[in-house]
Amino acid sequence: MVAALPRYVQIAESLLEQIESGQLKPGDRLPAERAMSEMLSVNRMTVRRALRVLESRGLVVRLQGDGTYVAEPKIERQAARLTSFTVGMQRRGLQPGARIVSFEQRPVEASVGALLQLPISAPVYSLLRLRSINQEPVMLERYTIPIQRFPGLERHDLVQRSVYEVFQTEYQVKVERARQSLEPVVATEFEAELLAIPSGSPLMLERRLSFDSEGRPVEHGTDLYRGDRFRFVTELAPLEM
Amino acid sequence: MVAALPRYVQIAESLLEQIESGQLKPGDRLPAERAMSEMLSVNRMTVRRALRVLESRGLVVRLQGDGTYVAEPKIERQAARLTSFTVGMQRRGLQPGARIVSFEQRPVEASVGALLQLPISAPVYSLLRLRSINQEPVMLERYTIPIQRFPGLERHDLVQRSVYEVFQTEYQVKVERARQSLEPVVATEFEAELLAIPSGSPLMLERRLSFDSEGRPVEHGTDLYRGDRFRFVTELAPLEM
Repeated sequence: MVAALPRYVQIAESLLEQIESGQLKPGDRLPAERAMSEMLSVNRMTVRRALRVLESRGLVVRLQGDGTYVAEPKIERQAARLTSFTVGMQRRGLQPGARIVSFEQRPVEASVGALLQLPISAPVYSLLRLRSINQEPVMLERYTIPIQRFPGLERHDLVQRSVYEVFQTEYQVKVERARQSLEPVVATEFEAELLAIPSGSPLMLERRLSFDSEGRPVEHGTDLYRGDRFRFVTELAPLEM
Repeated sequence: MVAALPRYVQIAESLLEQIESGQLKPGDRLPAERAMSEMLSVNRMTVRRALRVLESRGLVVRLQGDGTYVAEPKIERQAARLTSFTVGMQRRGLQPGARIVSFEQRPVEASVGALLQLPISAPVYSLLRLRSINQEPVMLERYTIPIQRFPGLERHDLVQRSVYEVFQTEYQVKVERARQSLEPVVATEFEAELLAIPSGSPLMLERRLSFDSEGRPVEHGTDLYRGDRFRFVTELAPLEM
């Protein structure tokens, strides 16, 4: 048997266990650092490092000059299913919202243009939308949409309506499936400011290329989800050895 | 149409585009900050912020006192399929390796015990293994394995062999499927040191509960993948509106 883990990792795991088993509940305040260090007979630096581990996992929130609280449980998104953000949140009884950060027309970049099978420098809409739940910003989405297929898109209400619903109702284009990738990244200053989180916070970057029923690419998307609010779930994958 | 993005975000996107389209290739060195700021008529702080965006995406690597280089492309993992790390890497012509960081017997935590359908405080093996590709550490995996079902596991070679292969060959237990979740997190000091990355770097946390052919839980796993080396792909998901 090989050596045990550092003390602060052990403390972090014990706290993690208390949160995951429900002994500690969302909104519960953890004991002060000094009290914890006395209780566990370790120095305060060790307690602080343990709390940083939990914070880095999105399990606790530290409020400046106040204390450390158990975070709300993360919202689960199905990684293998393409569910509208609006519909997904409403099903959970949460209130989704949207704000347009920027919306412009420009020539498509070469890499995205190739994915969308567009001519070089074809005009596209570039839409950056900030999504919220119960007024709290949680996701930043960017769409790249060919103008030729969706002329006059700017005349539709993209604050209240789902982009895919507008495609379907106004342009008779139905998104049927998508290819997606997920990557962990950290928030840049720009993203952090919009999402009201410290820069350097973990985010899930989802890149998406969607297709209509004939297999033609429809739009390209890159979404950034707050890591402290979302978890991506895939169900029962068959094993391949 | 709504206001455009900050200048440094625009510069980051233009560089990102040059990388994704292949104009800039892995290993290419970017021009020095001073040269870029003159070329683009912006101050050096703007250039630096743009480079930080690319770094936070794992697209460039900054070497202290040397310069900024285009990173190797990320390795794709199928998010919806359960492929052995060893097999997955070998298929790409990469050389996988393993090192045992810790291996101990202990009572199971309540939350994982419940998932594994074990009695309270049932004894488990806790195995922490560091995985590498071509000698570079890239992934940290932790297994929680019931001792009652896999007695004497410590007598098998868990450095060279796949854990699932040992289950199957030595214990006639075949992992058939799994439930997984993916979360973006940032590296703690402990993880950063093992993975040879700065603490605060983005990691993908994969939690896994695997099942045998009768639907009985086999083991619980939490893996941490370096965000600058991996991307998780899901193919062609059907849309649900």
